[in-house]
Amino acid sequence: MRQYPKPIETLVSLFTYLPGVGPKTAVRFVFYLLKQPKSTMARMASALQELHDAVVTCDVCKTYSTEPVCDTCRDGKRDKSLLCVVAQPRDVGTLDAAGFSGRYHVLGGALSPIEGITPDKLEVASLLVRLRQEPVREVILAFNPDIEGEATIMYLSKQLQSFSVRVTRLARGLPAGSDLEFADEVTLGDAISRRWEI
Amino acid sequence: MRQYPKPIETLVSLFTYLPGVGPKTAVRFVFYLLKQPKSTMARMASALQELHDAVVTCDVCKTYSTEPVCDTCRDGKRDKSLLCVVAQPRDVGTLDAAGFSGRYHVLGGALSPIEGITPDKLEVASLLVRLRQEPVREVILAFNPDIEGEATIMYLSKQLQSFSVRVTRLARGLPAGSDLEFADEVTLGDAISRRWEI
Repeated sequence: MRQYPKPIETLVSLFTYLPGVGPKTAVRFVFYLLKQPKSTMARMASALQELHDAVVTCDVCKTYSTEPVCDTCRDGKRDKSLLCVVAQPRDVGTLDAAGFSGRYHVLGGALSPIEGITPDKLEVASLLVRLRQEPVREVILAFNPDIEGEATIMYLSKQLQSFSVRVTRLARGLPAGSDLEFADEVTLGDAISRRWEI
Repeated sequence: MRQYPKPIETLVSLFTYLPGVGPKTAVRFVFYLLKQPKSTMARMASALQELHDAVVTCDVCKTYSTEPVCDTCRDGKRDKSLLCVVAQPRDVGTLDAAGFSGRYHVLGGALSPIEGITPDKLEVASLLVRLRQEPVREVILAFNPDIEGEATIMYLSKQLQSFSVRVTRLARGLPAGSDLEFADEVTLGDAISRRWEI
């Protein structure tokens, strides 16, 4: 590849750090920015700097926050008896958008021995501490239905046996708007055995 | 969509300005950055700031540069008799990588009356000035083979009639590694009529 002026090359190589962005897309991003009003670049620069400076991890639930304790944890209207355990901070937004109104605990990932993600790398200890201190009656293990997610659900459900809490997981079934024809056997099997009364 | 902490929301909305990046991808980018070492964000912020501060348009060929006159225009080893006219600054890199060693003129776009891109919006006047001043013997019109590119080639070739320069365009033909079966009729027709002696 030809060398572009240095400031362009620098940003191109940094943009390739983003997930799914290769050199060609990164070049496209940078040249697109160069065609925008200069204020766009300045605003993006200061937004990154602010992300760097202002975002911390919530002391309680471990999601991203601008305060030591996040908005969700400080929200008195939330149901303290329901605790939803998720892998990533972004899952908090996804579940909130779906209407969940309990509280969260962000594990920081899912178990994956191959990638070296063992229980001690995750926020398991802090979860157990919370369960001892908070009036939680149900723990929802809201992980992706993949190998890592299933392993994490298995592991956590064992850890939670000694607590007097109900332990649940998200239902598997047909996604809204999907087609029977393209559903995999496991999903369809679950959708049949857990069928709803109409 | 749920509100994330403000610094996250701000950067998400700025990332959606990038071509091909929707809200979901932008969220993915920001949460990915949050998982990286903090230095990545700071470096990206300063790279954007430097792009904002340091990149200008070359006085001669109108490509992006960190100097008033770009490296390519100051390079004494380049063939001054060959002038390649391109739509965008990034085309300069693309053609250089393919081995072109003449000089460039960046038009700043291709003609598109529908989008309001008329000749006066492009660097046409500065091209004609250069042709009067520089020892150019051949002008290569290196535009995309699409409607706008073809319109620009037509328009420029008329403007260049009064100059004693050879006016050429890039060859159409089968891309390397492609399959006859998927070639369109125009491309294949050109590839036949302009076939090479082996």
